[in-house]
Amino acid sequence: MHIAVVGTGLIGTSLGLAWRARGHLVVGCDVDERALEAARTRGAFDRTVDFDSARSADALVLAVPLDAACALLARLRDGSGNPAVVFDVASLQQPVIRAAAGLPGFVATHPMAGREGSGAAAADGAIFAGQPWIYEPVGGEPESVVVRLIVETGAIPVPLDGATHDRAVAVTSHLPQLLALALARCVGRRAAEGGVRAVAGPGLRGALRLANARWSMWGPLLAEQGHRDADLLEDLAAELKAMAAALRNGDPATIRRAFDEGPELLANIFRNTKDRDEGQDSP
Amino acid sequence: MHIAVVGTGLIGTSLGLAWRARGHLVVGCDVDERALEAARTRGAFDRTVDFDSARSADALVLAVPLDAACALLARLRDGSGNPAVVFDVASLQQPVIRAAAGLPGFVATHPMAGREGSGAAAADGAIFAGQPWIYEPVGGEPESVVVRLIVETGAIPVPLDGATHDRAVAVTSHLPQLLALALARCVGRRAAEGGVRAVAGPGLRGALRLANARWSMWGPLLAEQGHRDADLLEDLAAELKAMAAALRNGDPATIRRAFDEGPELLANIFRNTKDRDEGQDSP
Repeated sequence: MHIAVVGTGLIGTSLGLAWRARGHLVVGCDVDERALEAARTRGAFDRTVDFDSARSADALVLAVPLDAACALLARLRDGSGNPAVVFDVASLQQPVIRAAAGLPGFVATHPMAGREGSGAAAADGAIFAGQPWIYEPVGGEPESVVVRLIVETGAIPVPLDGATHDRAVAVTSHLPQLLALALARCVGRRAAEGGVRAVAGPGLRGALRLANARWSMWGPLLAEQGHRDADLLEDLAAELKAMAAALRNGDPATIRRAFDEGPELLANIFRNTKDRDEGQDSP
Repeated sequence: MHIAVVGTGLIGTSLGLAWRARGHLVVGCDVDERALEAARTRGAFDRTVDFDSARSADALVLAVPLDAACALLARLRDGSGNPAVVFDVASLQQPVIRAAAGLPGFVATHPMAGREGSGAAAADGAIFAGQPWIYEPVGGEPESVVVRLIVETGAIPVPLDGATHDRAVAVTSHLPQLLALALARCVGRRAAEGGVRAVAGPGLRGALRLANARWSMWGPLLAEQGHRDADLLEDLAAELKAMAAALRNGDPATIRRAFDEGPELLANIFRNTKDRDEGQDSP
């Protein structure tokens, strides 16, 4: 199949690597000439093209931040001569579904994959393997094509409607992301205090890992559902304050319950998933 | 050198593996017969002994939770025929320094190492390599012996007084630990909501990694400095509430600043450390 990948960052370049390895003809497209050059260096694409040439592919995937995906979908919707199948990999589905309204062959999708680093240099065709890849079930040939392409990356296709997806990622993705940034600020304010840098170990590093995320990716996501994310942050703040009160009151039972329940909560949250490598979602 | 390791859990067994590999005679001791048997299976010790026999070693290390370490130090302090060098690996130094007051040859230490899992089964002689190992500088031959043994595990000996150490680990270890548990509770309450398990990816898994910690290890630590930990939790709660307010007010500048500063904060916190593997501190 002739696939066009628009956006040659971490995810787009990783997709190019994965699909080329499966024998597809994959072309890459990016408005950023340096990003395109980096993707060329990685051998992720058969050739690089401009957006209008990308439209002649059988399937076109938008691997760009949410706001750019919405803008490109509007452009495709208002144009003609589009590929039979168009899909995106943005981290919220409802905004792209709205932007694509009326575009034939569109499927909203979101691979739950990623890794530390960004750009083509950090790309890896293996990052999708074993990870869920959410898609909005729309039926018909476009859905079949998208599911087949998902499976070819090694990911597990998971049908989920856009509204449910967007509520869920607020919990599993936006909340830990904002939390890591808040923690980075708290610890960062104390980094110069005696001993802090000396005793900063792998546990802290893991807790702060997401603090390397990029605003260009996250800004449009947070603008979309800031109120939902705010509810979750306030819920977590209340949890922290309750823990603080228990510690102050010398009430070990409350804290002990949190420790005792921890492993069970983890098992429950990740019940449907196999053990996966550590990494950064996208996002 | 003849080394006795008291406590054959993850850290004690890992120490046995590391020091035996360097040619030392290492004996293991544990009140839990199953823990001892598991350590035997791993080949971490030349033989296993009871606590009284362990006292005949040249150096004795207490690799047990804080409360047990304090109890054993009191026993050593009130006894005779002790090793010339005694050290611990507990995660707070002031309580052990108090418990050991008057015990000749004692050095309080804390290796910033660990990994997921617990017990001898999860032990690995390599977990100390490249990690800081804090010790209270007391001078003399006991300090020299301890520093030599630290270096032989591949760790980097870092002198730090107990009070400074204990303040610092509240920031770098207690705060992320309690935070992971609070996050586990928040996400756990929503685990059954549509899509949450489907979209729970590696980023969330990393943020929740510490939620597998054990109360037997943490209870004594939190009892020691709950007020200090409570201050930090409240500071973080305030940070989360400020973020929530910014999201509600559609004020992207505040959130953007957190994203923009994130990488710099990380670099500043981990300025003195080389890149280390992900893992769980102990704690």
